[in-house]
Parts: sequence; C-alpha cells; structure tokens
Amino acid sequence: MFVPDKILEQKLRQMLAEDIGLGDVTSQAIIPSDLIVNASIIAKEKGVAAGIEEATVLAESLGLRVKAKVADGETVKNKQVLIEISGDARTLLSAERTMLNLISRMSGIATATRMLTEKLKKVGSLAKVAATRKSAPGLLYFDKRAVVIGGGDPHRLHLDDMVLIKDNHIAIVGSAEEAVKKAKANISFTKKIEVEVTSVQDVLKVAQAGADAIMLDNFSVKQVKEAAALLEKAGFLGDVVLEASGGIKAEDILSYAAAKIDIISLGYLTQSIKALDISLEIMEEQSGTL
Amino acid sequence: MFVPDKILEQKLRQMLAEDIGLGDVTSQAIIPSDLIVNASIIAKEKGVAAGIEEATVLAESLGLRVKAKVADGETVKNKQVLIEISGDARTLLSAERTMLNLISRMSGIATATRMLTEKLKKVGSLAKVAATRKSAPGLLYFDKRAVVIGGGDPHRLHLDDMVLIKDNHIAIVGSAEEAVKKAKANISFTKKIEVEVTSVQDVLKVAQAGADAIMLDNFSVKQVKEAAALLEKAGFLGDVVLEASGGIKAEDILSYAAAKIDIISLGYLTQSIKALDISLEIMEEQSGTL
Amino acid sequence: MFVPDKILEQKLRQMLAEDIGLGDVTSQAIIPSDLIVNASIIAKEKGVAAGIEEATVLAESLGLRVKAKVADGETVKNKQVLIEISGDARTLLSAERTMLNLISRMSGIATATRMLTEKLKKVGSLAKVAATRKSAPGLLYFDKRAVVIGGGDPHRLHLDDMVLIKDNHIAIVGSAEEAVKKAKANISFTKKIEVEVTSVQDVLKVAQAGADAIMLDNFSVKQVKEAAALLEKAGFLGDVVLEASGGIKAEDILSYAAAKIDIISLGYLTQSIKALDISLEIMEEQSGTL
Amino acid sequence: MFVPDKILEQKLRQMLAEDIGLGDVTSQAIIPSDLIVNASIIAKEKGVAAGIEEATVLAESLGLRVKAKVADGETVKNKQVLIEISGDARTLLSAERTMLNLISRMSGIATATRMLTEKLKKVGSLAKVAATRKSAPGLLYFDKRAVVIGGGDPHRLHLDDMVLIKDNHIAIVGSAEEAVKKAKANISFTKKIEVEVTSVQDVLKVAQAGADAIMLDNFSVKQVKEAAALLEKAGFLGDVVLEASGGIKAEDILSYAAAKIDIISLGYLTQSIKALDISLEIMEEQSGTL
Amino acid sequence: MFVPDKILEQKLRQMLAEDIGLGDVTSQAIIPSDLIVNASIIAKEKGVAAGIEEATVLAESLGLRVKAKVADGETVKNKQVLIEISGDARTLLSAERTMLNLISRMSGIATATRMLTEKLKKVGSLAKVAATRKSAPGLLYFDKRAVVIGGGDPHRLHLDDMVLIKDNHIAIVGSAEEAVKKAKANISFTKKIEVEVTSVQDVLKVAQAGADAIMLDNFSVKQVKEAAALLEKAGFLGDVVLEASGGIKAEDILSYAAAKIDIISLGYLTQSIKALDISLEIMEEQSGTL
Amino acid sequence: MFVPDKILEQKLRQMLAEDIGLGDVTSQAIIPSDLIVNASIIAKEKGVAAGIEEATVLAESLGLRVKAKVADGETVKNKQVLIEISGDARTLLSAERTMLNLISRMSGIATATRMLTEKLKKVGSLAKVAATRKSAPGLLYFDKRAVVIGGGDPHRLHLDDMVLIKDNHIAIVGSAEEAVKKAKANISFTKKIEVEVTSVQDVLKVAQAGADAIMLDNFSVKQVKEAAALLEKAGFLGDVVLEASGGIKAEDILSYAAAKIDIISLGYLTQSIKALDISLEIMEEQSGTL
Repeated sequence: MFVPDKILEQKLRQMLAEDIGLGDVTSQAIIPSDLIVNASIIAKEKGVAAGIEEATVLAESLGLRVKAKVADGETVKNKQVLIEISGDARTLLSAERTMLNLISRMSGIATATRMLTEKLKKVGSLAKVAATRKSAPGLLYFDKRAVVIGGGDPHRLHLDDMVLIKDNHIAIVGSAEEAVKKAKANISFTKKIEVEVTSVQDVLKVAQAGADAIMLDNFSVKQVKEAAALLEKAGFLGDVVLEASGGIKAEDILSYAAAKIDIISLGYLTQSIKALDISLEIMEEQSGTL
Repeated sequence: MFVPDKILEQKLRQMLAEDIGLGDVTSQAIIPSDLIVNASIIAKEKGVAAGIEEATVLAESLGLRVKAKVADGETVKNKQVLIEISGDARTLLSAERTMLNLISRMSGIATATRMLTEKLKKVGSLAKVAATRKSAPGLLYFDKRAVVIGGGDPHRLHLDDMVLIKDNHIAIVGSAEEAVKKAKANISFTKKIEVEVTSVQDVLKVAQAGADAIMLDNFSVKQVKEAAALLEKAGFLGDVVLEASGGIKAEDILSYAAAKIDIISLGYLTQSIKALDISLEIMEEQSGTL
Repeated sequence: MFVPDKILEQKLRQMLAEDIGLGDVTSQAIIPSDLIVNASIIAKEKGVAAGIEEATVLAESLGLRVKAKVADGETVKNKQVLIEISGDARTLLSAERTMLNLISRMSGIATATRMLTEKLKKVGSLAKVAATRKSAPGLLYFDKRAVVIGGGDPHRLHLDDMVLIKDNHIAIVGSAEEAVKKAKANISFTKKIEVEVTSVQDVLKVAQAGADAIMLDNFSVKQVKEAAALLEKAGFLGDVVLEASGGIKAEDILSYAAAKIDIISLGYLTQSIKALDISLEIMEEQSGTL
Repeated sequence: MFVPDKILEQKLRQMLAEDIGLGDVTSQAIIPSDLIVNASIIAKEKGVAAGIEEATVLAESLGLRVKAKVADGETVKNKQVLIEISGDARTLLSAERTMLNLISRMSGIATATRMLTEKLKKVGSLAKVAATRKSAPGLLYFDKRAVVIGGGDPHRLHLDDMVLIKDNHIAIVGSAEEAVKKAKANISFTKKIEVEVTSVQDVLKVAQAGADAIMLDNFSVKQVKEAAALLEKAGFLGDVVLEASGGIKAEDILSYAAAKIDIISLGYLTQSIKALDISLEIMEEQSGTL
Repeated sequence: MFVPDKILEQKLRQMLAEDIGLGDVTSQAIIPSDLIVNASIIAKEKGVAAGIEEATVLAESLGLRVKAKVADGETVKNKQVLIEISGDARTLLSAERTMLNLISRMSGIATATRMLTEKLKKVGSLAKVAATRKSAPGLLYFDKRAVVIGGGDPHRLHLDDMVLIKDNHIAIVGSAEEAVKKAKANISFTKKIEVEVTSVQDVLKVAQAGADAIMLDNFSVKQVKEAAALLEKAGFLGDVVLEASGGIKAEDILSYAAAKIDIISLGYLTQSIKALDISLEIMEEQSGTL
Repeated sequence: MFVPDKILEQKLRQMLAEDIGLGDVTSQAIIPSDLIVNASIIAKEKGVAAGIEEATVLAESLGLRVKAKVADGETVKNKQVLIEISGDARTLLSAERTMLNLISRMSGIATATRMLTEKLKKVGSLAKVAATRKSAPGLLYFDKRAVVIGGGDPHRLHLDDMVLIKDNHIAIVGSAEEAVKKAKANISFTKKIEVEVTSVQDVLKVAQAGADAIMLDNFSVKQVKEAAALLEKAGFLGDVVLEASGGIKAEDILSYAAAKIDIISLGYLTQSIKALDISLEIMEEQSGTL
C-alpha cells in the first residue's frame, strides 16, 4: 500500500480543506500573520503511533517544518513527543486538528491491532489479525494502513482486488460451490478467491471447489476445529487459508488461534475505535522568519 | 446543516467510488447482469438509527428503489428492518458495504449521544451534549449530523463558523482577555466568540472581555461550580454560555449538568465510536425487470 | 478567513486551468521556451490594493518569483507598481490575465468598501459597512476577503455559519417571532441568529424573541431611528445588533450611520463592481536562466 | 458555446456546494422537511434576461420544478416574473441565492451589452460589440454567454482558441510583424491570428504580415479612421477584421462604429458590472407532496 | 470489474467535458435548440463490439434515448447498426465523438483479443490471452474491460491488487527468491505473488520460494518448454501459473500455447491499437419533442 | 498548446493516482523505504521522442531528479537513453509504468507523424499532416501535442475552438452553404469555419458561402484535383484551406500532396497507434540519501 507522498498529499489536503471551509476565522482574528512558532504533538496516553507519516506529509506540503520523533509502529508512552513542528503560526493552527485527527484515529486502530498481534506472538501463534472493509467511509486507505502498522493484515483493500463471495452472493447463486465454480471460470488468474461459509459441512465442499481461502462466519472455536479437522483429513489444510470472522472478541482470540486458524478478522478494529489521546502544544514563538 | 440530496449525493458517490476501485470483481464474476433482488438492512442490536437518509440518497442515486422503514433518530430494536431496498443485484451488492458503513458509524454516534441526552432529560436538565471537531478526517458533515440526530449540539462545524480561542491561541497572544479583545476588534458581527480557559480565575476576566461562551477545559465539577458562582455574582450567568470540555466521562455527565453548565462537549462521541451492528440481507430474487 | 497558501493555491490553479483550456497557443507559437523575463503589475488608477496575496500565491505556485510592492489594503496611486514578477515568459504570459482579473476585481471591491468606511471614520461613526451573499457565483471567498481588506465586515460567509431568517423563511413559518423561537430551539449554541424585518413594529418583537441581530430591510433613515428608539426604550439597544440593508446608496450612508445603526450592508459592493484598472508590463528579458 | 445540460449542471452544483458549506443551518432549523412551496423569481427593474437557462438547469438538477416565463435574451420589465419554481422548501431556499446571483450577474452583463448593440442597430451599423477576457475568475463560460445573449461577440473564449498577440508578446518578440510571422509558421491552420497594435503605422505592417484581425489599442476615433484609410488603400479593408479596444466608453461607441470598425471590445462589460436587481418570492405553500 | 452505471457515468462525463471545453460552437451556431433527431452508430468494418455499455451510459446520462442493437462482445459486420440513439440534436452532436472514440478504441482492443482467443479455442488450448498495464494513461478501466470483452484476462488491474515482482524489483532486492520471500513475509494473504524471471534456472527457484505465478520474460518457445519440464519434474506444474510475456507476436501464439503455458500476455493489445472504424449517422429529424 | 508545468502536473498525477489505487503493494513489500536508486528510460527501437516533458514534469513533481537526455521531437536510436532519473526507489517504481505509458504512446504518435512529414518535406511539399479528434478519450491534450512534436498540425483542439461543419450538421441544416451562412451569422469573428464536403460540386458553393477551410471527405486524388481546379478558376485557391480527410493511407500521402492540398488529416495517427517500445532500467543503488 505504498503511495508516493505527493499523491497522498492530495487526499490529505482535501481533508484539511473541508475542515477550513472558507477560512479559519480565529487565527486570522488574533494571530499575527508573520509569526513563526515551534510546537510538539504529544501523546497523552501510551499506545502505538500511526499516522505520523500522514501528518508529516500534510504539514510539509503546507510549508511547515516537521521532525518526526517516532516512526509509525513504535510504541509510545504518555507525554512522549511524537512530532516536532515549526512554521507559520496561522497555518499550523489551521491544520492542527486535521493532523491530530489523523494520528489519533490511526494510532487508535494500530494500538488495538497491536494488542492482539502481541497476544498471538506471545503464545507463538502464526495466526494473523486482519481488518475488514468495515471502515469509516472514505478512509479505507488510512484505516487499512493503520492495521498494517499495528501488525495486522489489511485484508482485501476494496472491491477490485480479490473475489470474496459472501452470504448475499451465495443466496443469489444458490450454493457456495456453485459460486466458486463461477468465480473460477470468470475471474483473472491474478485474483484469489475466498468464500464465506456458515456451516462446517460447507467448508470441505468449498475447498474442493477450489477456494483459496475460506471465511468461517460466526464459527465457534469448536466449529473451527471441526472444519480444520475435515480439511486436514481431505489434504487441504495448509493449502487453503482459514479465516475466522464475525463477532470475535479480543478475549477469544487465543482460543481461535489455537484452533489452527490462519486469519482472525475483526470489524471492530476499524469500526469501533478508541482514538489515542494526543495533543499539539505550542512550545515557543520565534521572532524571525523561518 | 441541511444539504440538498443532489449535493449530498456527490460526497456519497465519491465514498462508493473509492470502495469500488476499478470494479467489483466478485459481483461481475458470479452475479447475473440482469437480476433484480429485494434486500433489507437490518439492525443486529438496539440503538438509535442515523444515516438512513444518507444511505437512501446514495442508493436512490444509483437507481435502486428504497423504502426507509425507520427515520433518522428513531430507536430501533435488534432484528428491526431499517431499510427495504430493491434493484439491480450487482449494483446493490457493490454499494452494500458503503451503505452499511454509513449507517453503522452514524447510528453508533447517535446512539452514544442519545444515551447522554436521555440521561439529562430524565433529571430535567437543560444542559446539552455537544460534539467537538475530533472527528474522522473528511467526515465532519456525517459525524456532526449523527450527533444532532442523537439529540446533541453539533458545536462549531469547521474553522469558519465561530471564533474559538483555544490554549494554543492564548499561548501566542499572551492572555485570554487579550485574545478576546483582538477577536472582538477583528471579527464579523455574525460570529460568536468562545474562549477556552484553564483556571477559575480566568473565567470572569474572559466574560468581562466580552466572550459569548467559555469553554472550561478539564474543570472538575467543583471548579465548574466555582466558575458559575463567580459569573453569577458578576451578573454574567445566563448571558454567557458555559461549556465543560475535556476528559468528561459518560458517568460524570449528571454531576456536570447539576453544576449549572450549559454545554457538555465530548470528543469521544465522534472519535471513539462503537458502531451499531447492522447487516444487509438479500430477501428474494425477482425474475423480471425492476 | 485565513486559508493556508497551499489550500488557496488549489482554487487559484483551477481558475487558471479554466482560462488555459488545452494550452496557450499564442505563447507557444511566438515565445521562446527558455526565456526569463521581468514584469510589473501596475495600477492604472488610484484605489485600494487587494488580491495581491492571491496573485502572489498563484504566481509562486507556478514557479515564478514575486515581490509584492504593496500589501493588500494599501492605497495605491496611478502608475504605482503593485507586484514585480519574474520567471519563465510563457508561464507568466499564460497566467497574466488570471492574476490581473483577481487583483482588479478584488481591488475594485476593496476600493468601493474603503470609500465608505473612510466616510464613516471621518465622522467618527462606529457603524460598519458589510458585504452580503450577493457575490459572483463561486467567488464567495475572494469577494468577502476583498470587503474585509477594504475595512468592511464580511457578514455571513455562506449558509452554514449563521442563522439568517429572511422574508421567505418568515413567509413559510408565519411570523418573525415564531421563526426566532424555532431557530433558538433547534440551532447550535455556536450560531448567532439574525432576522430580517420589514416593519418597525416587528423590530421589538424580534428582539424580545431573542434575536442577536436584526436586519432592517429597506428601512428609511426615519424608520431606522424609530426602530432604535423602540429598542432603546425596551433596553435592547446595544445588546442586539442593528443592520440596515436593501437599496442603500453610497451617498446615504452617513444618514444611516447617524441613526444608531451598527451595520450597513450593501449588495452592490460585491455584485455591481467597478474593477480597478491595472495592467502587466514586461520590463526586460533576461538571457540566462532564473 | 453549447454545453449539454448535464455537463453544465456539474459546474452549477459546485457553485451551490460552495455556498452551502456543511449545510444550510437556517432552513434546517425553521423550515419543515416535507414542505412543498411555489415561488417566483421576479425582476425588480427592467433589463435583458440572462442566466434563465443556468438557473433552470441548476434547479431541475436539484429536483425542483421550473417553468421559465421568459427566455434568455428577452427584455423584461420591473415586477415581471422570470421563473416559476416549486418543490421542497429547504432545497429551494438553499439554492435561492446561487440562482439569483447567476441571473443577476448574467442579466447585468446582457443588459449592458444589449444597450450598446441596440445603439448600433439603430444607426444601421454592422459593427459588433465584443467581450474581452477581463472576466471574473472562474466565470468565463457564464460571462461570455451573457455577452452573447446580449447580442455581443464573445471574442476569444480562453487561451487555446485563437492567437492573440498583445503588447507583452510583442515586447518580447521585437516587433508585431515578426510576431505574426512566427505565429503563422507555428500555429494550426484552424486558428485565426489577431494582433494588438498601438500606432497607425503598425496597422499596415501587420496586415501585410498576414494577420486575420487587428486590435487597435487605445486608438482615438481619428486614429481608427487613419488606420482604415491605410488598409483600404492597400486593399486589406474587408479582409482583415478591425477591432477597437481599450478605454472605449459607452457614449463613444457610435463614433467608433462610424469609423469603419468591425468590432468594439469593452472590458467593462464583464468586469465592471451593474447586476440586474431580482428577487425570489415564496408565493404559497402546498400541503401535499410534489 | 463491475462498476455501477452512475459511478461510471462520472468518468465518462469528465471525458466529454474535456472534449467540449467552453462549449460546442458549431452546434450552437447552426443547429436549432429544440430539434430532436434519430441517429445510428454503425460499424464500418467487421470486428467485436465493445464500449457499447459505456456509450450507452454516457448518452443516457445526458438525457438521450439509446437502444443498443448489439451487446458488448458480439461480432459485428460492416454496416451493422450498433446503437440507435435519439434526442436533442445539439447534445447528440456534442457527444458524438466521445461516444465513437470509446467504442472504436474498446472494439479495436476487443477485436484484437478475440482474434487470439479464437485461435486458441480452435486448437483446444486452455491457455489464456492476457492484457498488461501497458495501457493509455487514465484508461486502465476501459482498456482492461475491452480485453475481458474480447475473451482475455485483464491481468493485474493496477498496483494495489497483486504482487508482481519485476526485473527492477529484483535488481534492487538481489534475487528473485529473496524477493518472493520478502513478499510472502510482508503481504496480505489476499494477494497472489507473481515473479518475472529471465532464465530457465530461475523458474524452479521461484516456484520453490512460493510464487503463485511466474512470468517468463522474453522466453522462446523452447525455453518455455524447458521451464515447464523443470516444474513438472519438481511437482509444481499445475499449481503455479506460467505466463509468457514480452515480444510475443500474434503469429507465435499457438506455439506458446502448445508449450504448456497458462497465460500469454501481450502489451500491444492495449498499447498498439487498431481502432475499429465506426461512425454516427443522423437518420431523420423529428419535429416534435422527445 | 503551452500549459504551465504546475497545471500539467495535476493531470499527470491523476493518471498516476488511478494506476496506484490504494497503494503499490509490491514496492511496499520488498523495497526498503529509504533507498535511493538511479535509473534510465531507454528506447528499445528507433523513433521520435515525445512525452519526455510530460514524464519529466510528473517525476519532478514526485520529488525525483530527472535529467532529460533527449528533447521532445528528437530522433532516437535503439538503446538510446531518453531520461536519467534518480530518487526514492518506491516512488520511482510506482510511477514507472505511468511514465513509460506516456512516453511510448506519445512517441508512437510522433513517430508515425514524422514519417509522413519527412516524406512531404523530401518532395518539397508544403502540405501539412494533421490530427483529428479521433483520440483516446481524455487524452486530447497529449495526443495533439504528440502530433505537433512529430511535425503535424493539431487541427481543432476540442469543440470550442473552431466551427467544423460535418456531414451530420449538414444533414440537419439541409445544405452545406446554408450551414456556412448560419455559422457566419452566429459565430464569433475569432473563429474559422471549416466545412466537410462529399462531392466536388459542393466545394465551390462552400467557398463562395465563405468557408475558411474545406474538408474533402473521402475524395480520391483525382477528385481533389478537380476541386482544386474549380477553386483556382473561381479565384479561391490560396484563400481557402483545402483539407483531405477520410481513409487516406500513409502510402497515398504524396499523391494527395501533389494535388494542391494544404492539409492531409489522418485519424489513425491518434487512434490506431503503434507505441514506441521503451523501458526503464534500474542502474544502481545508492546507500546515502538523495
């Protein structure tokens, strides 16, 4: 998901433009037009930093000077400085909230993801935590990137990069096997095919039909185990990716991981977010020009 | 915050376009191109519906037929149908996730807001719950609207519609009074002026300088009471709006409300969201054309 | 109305792109591709400079070097140099008209505004001249800013930043008081409420209903005085802003100002413009590179 | 300059979106969401109607019903109804100002143009009044169209559709003849070439070099006559278009027309505008749906 | 690659808007504004129709009535009517060239693709013809879709939907195996990994490293056979997709297909196009309204 | 067709953004984030370079360093370096294909055009080769510029810059003369008028009606000669531009040129393209920063 800074900059400026509307009336009214200030973006609680790159690209594109003090993915402590930034006071104050909103949302997502990936790492599990498309509208890039920074798998980025046959597709086509067959016949060799199944018995059928990955929807840990056993017996385990999805809570993640699952996807990572608390503080004024 | 449907439609289509990328490969591979289906968007838990209008505008703009079964702001129960929708199956499936993401985010915000506004109503408080600008980047309109649907005050919409003098502005200008004086001298008569203060003693100074509203930043309930008492003595209470902000938790809201506060603003409403769980279910296929 | 240069730049480039179409055929045909020139933008009549910042931001964003010789808001004389500019000849010639159009329109608005604000200042009036939303479509930001540069009040920026209840709203709601009551019940605490009234008797009712400002539509000076007297008697004068609007001519402004009016708004400032005459003159060629 | 409605609609919606910002707070606060109203756009003074088509396309694109009572180009009287419009009250009120601004600006331009074209017609002159590129930034299409509606010539639309060699080009190239030669060598056969000259003696040189049109910059009527005589003698009159430009006032137009000029171009038509006074009046409410 | 019509419409209108510029001057000058005409888009040579859907969506979005007489993918003969279209004459003439350009380019691509896929089908080969990213800039969607309509595989749509490790990546990383290992470690489970190899000996290494597909760059038929033999011996044949790419000509395709290749990709399909010759003919005028 | 770099940059970035989608997954997975590389864009066959400026503007706008080794319009040999480029490896690899696609398409068009213009030059013909509007949708600027680089005439750029009356216009208006008359009455003096004729007898009528140029549609060389003879006899030859168009092949161009034709336009130049084969090769890595 690499995007050149100058392309990213355009998305970021659009966000800022929306926040500014026809102009920041507060800065214009009370802040001198030629004032240079130094400021710091500071964590107000511990977590995993994310959005540092986005905030940096935005600030630099506005002519501000930025020194990132942590990299995306680093763990930060309460009161730790994330970014030092200096430049035109009005510009900085106008962009403050957009920068903070980017970092606090992305860091919140990365922190929640890291919490789970650390849990799995501790027990030596190879299972991966993954995002879903349950993101804030218009923020797919940022939400997915935050999950990756937290150590998770971004999963499908949008509708063009993987075939993912879900319940509603199957409801129309008739059966999961039929859907896989159609997909294999019609889709580019560059695409993987994943299928959502809702019962243990469908798992094998779908693997036999040629799915690359199987999403076990709302499966209990016990059902996941049954599914894995079936696949193992039929020689599919290892070849087909097993993903558990639907209503899985943070506290259940180790049980699922123990059940030979490859991927555990969680909608709440990008949908029910606890933003990281951060703030920007003006440190000092400079009398001269930048 | 009224926006004509056809203007709103453009923002919504842009969100959808991002999610689709170069095309929905799954729908094309397995769903017939001329199939008409009926579907329902259904709540999977109780809450306050929001985003119904947005999802409706988007779906109708794509040529789908929509019948909203609840209005924005209504309380919904688990399993309740929010929207019935019919039309071209591929179009519907391509737009499913964008519609759901809009409704689940906005309903999550509205539900959290309503929970607080109901609390205040029960004790007969006139205090209002308010949003902040701590929103997802690019989603100010949707996040603010969801707060309004939940019964809250949207607060300032963006940087052009109110003077809000915060800690960083004051750090540059020197003092809160000075900042208010500058603002009064330089700003349009159409704008209100609000000032963030961090100590009880600043409250009176700022009111005397002519602020329309005072944001009590991280004040304890006791401090709020002291501030209110000071203002009352000086004859400002009732004329100047008192807003408590910063780190207030849902459980403390009644204590703040009891302290003669007018507005209680909470960043978490739009920043640390618990999305409402909803889903779209295909109900039946139709053989004919729409 | 502060907008960071890099955000402003995007609006300005869009204007230029429209003027260029698929390319400046004249420059390409006859101007060498590697020629550096010096040029000056020069006033051809006296007035108040405005748009200097906009032209500077546009030119610098194209890689031209700009030295502003006057600041926005300064009075300029005939033949006075406003901006010295140098760089690639083709780029400069392609952007010439867009820069000139910005400056001449904005300076025309600022000059007309200043003429009135000076009049008021001379007699010691505290009344302010204000713009309306009668602007060229798409140019709200530039037109409002020009009024501010001329010493006027921008008034409401667009539809989201103030409640302004006009004749048509009242026609629907039934009465001005009823409209104010509805507005107070439904609107954010961050918004001021202004109401347009067409008769002296409505002024007091509207003030009592809680309007922050009252627009006296097409009031004669005599009616304004009656309205002010009524408000004074009822103790509202000073608390509620009185705005005279509708058909006021430049020559009547002192009479209105004498009638205890706070704001005199004039649609013609942004709608019936006399552009300031300016031109760009190539001063010399440079043989080397910039 | 024909543009299909659906393409025009996009420019118009963008103008409206700027005016609305994050939403019309007045309409939402006090106008019921399901109210249908009838309204009329009415001239408050006499003039030539223009922008009727643009306002119609915008309103219809928002779902309003529009009945144009006059066509673009028709003369209208004070109190004459231009457009009858009905539909959702909030939508109509949100779009009111954008529609009025379009019509009043374009009608102002058309009225000023018509005044001149009528003068010429009365004396039987074949000379044409023309616009320049001295337009409001971003409004080239609308300003040019208004001139055409008023009976004028739009002149060059933007920088890609004609070679127009002006003083600054000549200052770089060295001489007007040299510039014409370069243009003829480098430009598409589809383009006409016009050259600005500042002295009578250059007129003939430029005609001999092959210019299709000659812009006589700031020529007195006497100079125009001399230029025409020179061209006539050399056999160019009739083949080359003669345009008078620069500082020509409305009252001088007949003198110029008498001097065998083909085109009289006037920057003030699109730059120093007297907008036509118009307003929108709500006529009645409807209880039912549209 | 399914895109809802209303999303596609926006891309298509943007193309049309570029072609129209500030307006179609020919239609306005000579075509009556209220004329309804019937027209047909007709093939001037035989080929495979493509772009019918795109032209239909564009025309319908402009308010024209369209009846497609062939479907995308059908073989058409010289003089065959592809589309019947009726509506406003000016609108139709303004959009004519954009519609024709879409159809003739896409049909050209589809025809060239079909020629190859038919060849393969005749000899019973299961090999597929594929596109590359060598497309016209900005036209990825349309070019890929045309290949699909012709019976080919669109290959990777853009940079986000598959890992494709090419020569330049390998030059940086050091070796193809190392690159595959890095990719497997860092990429989402939803992505396939393909690697470009330039020698037969690399083929096996890359398969062993875990590539899903191998692109044999500029391999002769003999080298392809050697590669396939190696993979077969090692048990990879059938599991890993073999793609021949680079300088393959239409006449060689059967030899490659005979060499156990799965995919034959050809840049020329979307880069060196022979457009299908088509034209639009006005059939008759209608006096009434549509 | 001069466009300032910073305006061109926006079109180019949009093309790149489409190709990148939500991010280049390959570069991110395997290329270090802080690596600087040197690369060359190299011709793989001989031809005329075009698009060098476009690729340079795009690359520089992304922060890459570019040294163009050939200028647009120069003839290049197989293996010749066109551009040397250095900078961030991920950025360069993400933009590689967009840069190559621009250069190879534009060079293909320029090469085909040059082949013809050289032929004409060799025999001393003054006839010019011209483009048509048969271009790839959305690429008018680039396609026309490539023709100009190849020595051709871009012809009409889009619908707003010339009146071109074609068969379908005439079918509606009734006759070519009538169409010319209408055009002359309704169009700006800045526009040339060209008319397409399908028979020799119409040529004279159209010249007499005042056309500036006549497009001889599908005329044989013999018919062109007849038309020229007719015009010569009537004294129009030399005043009216004669354009041969429709189905002319490269091999026939000298015969047409010999027949006193001014312009020979060929749709295939921009529609049926043979792209120039080029590639980008990473030359070396740099350990330090740029």
